[in-house]
Amino acid sequence: MVSSAATPHVVIVGGGFGGLACARTLRRAPVRVTLVDRLNHHLFQPLLYQVATAGLSPAQIAAPIRQVLSRQRNVSVVMAEVTAVDAERRVVHLADGQLAYDILVLAAGAETSWFGNDEWACLAPGLKTIEDALEIRERLMESFERAERSLDPESRISNLTFVIVGGGPTGVEIAGAIREIALHQVPRDYRNVDTTSARIILVEAQDRLLPAGFDETLCVRAARDLRKTGVEVRLETRVVAIDAASVELQGHAGTERIATRNVIWAAGIRPSPIAATLGCPLDRSGQVPVEADLSVRGRPEIFIVGDMARVKDPESGNLVPGIAPAAMQMGRHAGRVIATGQREPFHYRDKGMLATIGRARAVGTLGGLRLTGLVAWLLWSGVHIFYLISFRQRILVMLDWIWSYLFFSGGARLITTPAPGRRHPPRDGSGPSSSE
Amino acid sequence: MVSSAATPHVVIVGGGFGGLACARTLRRAPVRVTLVDRLNHHLFQPLLYQVATAGLSPAQIAAPIRQVLSRQRNVSVVMAEVTAVDAERRVVHLADGQLAYDILVLAAGAETSWFGNDEWACLAPGLKTIEDALEIRERLMESFERAERSLDPESRISNLTFVIVGGGPTGVEIAGAIREIALHQVPRDYRNVDTTSARIILVEAQDRLLPAGFDETLCVRAARDLRKTGVEVRLETRVVAIDAASVELQGHAGTERIATRNVIWAAGIRPSPIAATLGCPLDRSGQVPVEADLSVRGRPEIFIVGDMARVKDPESGNLVPGIAPAAMQMGRHAGRVIATGQREPFHYRDKGMLATIGRARAVGTLGGLRLTGLVAWLLWSGVHIFYLISFRQRILVMLDWIWSYLFFSGGARLITTPAPGRRHPPRDGSGPSSSE
Repeated sequence: MVSSAATPHVVIVGGGFGGLACARTLRRAPVRVTLVDRLNHHLFQPLLYQVATAGLSPAQIAAPIRQVLSRQRNVSVVMAEVTAVDAERRVVHLADGQLAYDILVLAAGAETSWFGNDEWACLAPGLKTIEDALEIRERLMESFERAERSLDPESRISNLTFVIVGGGPTGVEIAGAIREIALHQVPRDYRNVDTTSARIILVEAQDRLLPAGFDETLCVRAARDLRKTGVEVRLETRVVAIDAASVELQGHAGTERIATRNVIWAAGIRPSPIAATLGCPLDRSGQVPVEADLSVRGRPEIFIVGDMARVKDPESGNLVPGIAPAAMQMGRHAGRVIATGQREPFHYRDKGMLATIGRARAVGTLGGLRLTGLVAWLLWSGVHIFYLISFRQRILVMLDWIWSYLFFSGGARLITTPAPGRRHPPRDGSGPSSSE
Repeated sequence: MVSSAATPHVVIVGGGFGGLACARTLRRAPVRVTLVDRLNHHLFQPLLYQVATAGLSPAQIAAPIRQVLSRQRNVSVVMAEVTAVDAERRVVHLADGQLAYDILVLAAGAETSWFGNDEWACLAPGLKTIEDALEIRERLMESFERAERSLDPESRISNLTFVIVGGGPTGVEIAGAIREIALHQVPRDYRNVDTTSARIILVEAQDRLLPAGFDETLCVRAARDLRKTGVEVRLETRVVAIDAASVELQGHAGTERIATRNVIWAAGIRPSPIAATLGCPLDRSGQVPVEADLSVRGRPEIFIVGDMARVKDPESGNLVPGIAPAAMQMGRHAGRVIATGQREPFHYRDKGMLATIGRARAVGTLGGLRLTGLVAWLLWSGVHIFYLISFRQRILVMLDWIWSYLFFSGGARLITTPAPGRRHPPRDGSGPSSSE
């Protein structure tokens, strides 16, 4: 693989967990690496919900990709939008140029999917980027403000009703965090409304919370713990309509319309649209089916890692889950194949899974052990602090968490866009609607 | 003043230093206070330049006004935009309603003024809000990215040329901070450009830096220190034209056109337009001339504090400067007059002035003493940490500063808006121009 006369040029698309792990694995390989991302920062996605719920600041969970890789001399970082791959000519098309490659690693991740209802995008924002998180944070804080100023009891209730769609880890974590804000962090700040009366409704189409990989006992426990804190958990329930003032749910008991000005979409993702430009068949979800070594069938010079790849573990036969540790393992694997030329099959090592449920509670597995409550939460905190990219961020995030735990106080409850000239129209139906 | 049968209603417009100080002074007074601000947070403006130059995160220098005042039971906080004052009817008009007052305190501060050249607003952003600061931060980081990708030497130079207009404390601090980034923080991150070659030009129309109140020896020292770090200081020089690719300067030696894609406007402010709705004559700068007790002539129930007020100190005859300590003193004074009914004249207590000049250097005065270099910088750090609103922010900002000092590394070098669909058009002339 590294036998060509000139130094081979490896292009990595995406500076997420998969792309960064691949670049780092190549640090001593005799290759020239170019990492392309449309943003200048790596984002620690597992904590993005804390930015959306005003616990952390963006800079605490994001780091400039250049800075992360500044000591690795064989890597260049390019901030550019990749629009397509020309696999025949071995060229990546950028919004304003192109890049030729010898080896390509696609690690561009996934984006929010509204399952064909793209008109919901501006009514029920998803959570994949820092902009998304700040948008949700702003809407959340504005709802409390609107409730405080409103003289109409119905408007108050609809402003204090939060519907979170999707019972995966993100949905569970957002629901728990909003409950925590309404119950502990802001009640003293408002004079006219009782924020502890806020309704938080978590809607999930399946009959259980959390993703397929999670132990079923723990899924039941997560639902019980959430309900104990006051979150309404609706399983086997689907969203059939969303408008500016309400959401319609369909469950066993029929349909129900809930008046709310706050819907957050944590229900689905779809792989980056770059996958579709490869010219190879995709699976139903839009992922690229890969060979055992993570390369594309018939294109040994193209590797797919992270959320863009559909990978079955050869031993268990299970699909590899779309979580950060899996993306990192795939990135490292692709890097090793490129560096050594040995086309070993990829094996996913399941190190466990964790999800927090509000204040000092979590559920998870670790090496076969089931953990719940405070123990799981301490483990969750430790793991997330450990994996944060820079040491500076580790310290600052840890201090923020300790502070929040002790004093029931959030760290970043800011509305930074002034009311007129607001970037995203508020959900009162008066602004022009726009899909993002 | 508190003799009316019902509890008097004090409306304070603005949650900056003046408005908050006034609200706090009224905490034991037999009045009902409503504080109105169009944003939900108090902003620690003296450190805003550090958000613009990627040193701190917004949440580290801003705090929700509700939270700051949550323990003070006689205050309500309303998030709303004040559009006008009807002094006859004693009513404040909001964008979506109105508020009747018995006593009014106007503390709405100032906004950026381009001295009649409002078309410069999108070419040379000002620095008054968190949005402004994030906009400048994004442009700054994008310039380095564009320089790195550019193959044209002229475009590289213009992307690495930063022109800061206005030699007041903000201009001096921004110039020093950008020099520090280019020289120490990012050089290792880029492969194709030498960021240490960046030109930073500070333009000031007067013959000296820093505002009128500053000791002249220190102004000379500030210019010398800035030049030593590599900033080009141009005194007695005016900006006569700005376009998307250059700025035209006029000095003693004639006019010069400098190719640059980065102009930051720190040259002027004007009082909030609310002042003009009062119906009383304003001075040339748009400020409201006030009586000795800070009330408006003929309207003893209206007080003006902070940047909106034109106040001469009765002893020295000097104008009270537009800085945070002055606004706080005025706010407290208006609060005491309201609480006691004693119409004492306002006296400004000059506690000194400080301005930083890049890494570990500052100039300032303290009780008649002139301070420079590291000593002044340590004092500057201490004072700013001390006055930050919450204890949590004090700790986190201090840690960030210590870290930056030790490791030459900024804290928040993020570009959060993805390239397409960007909110503000980049300065390449291709996007639609918009005034902000």
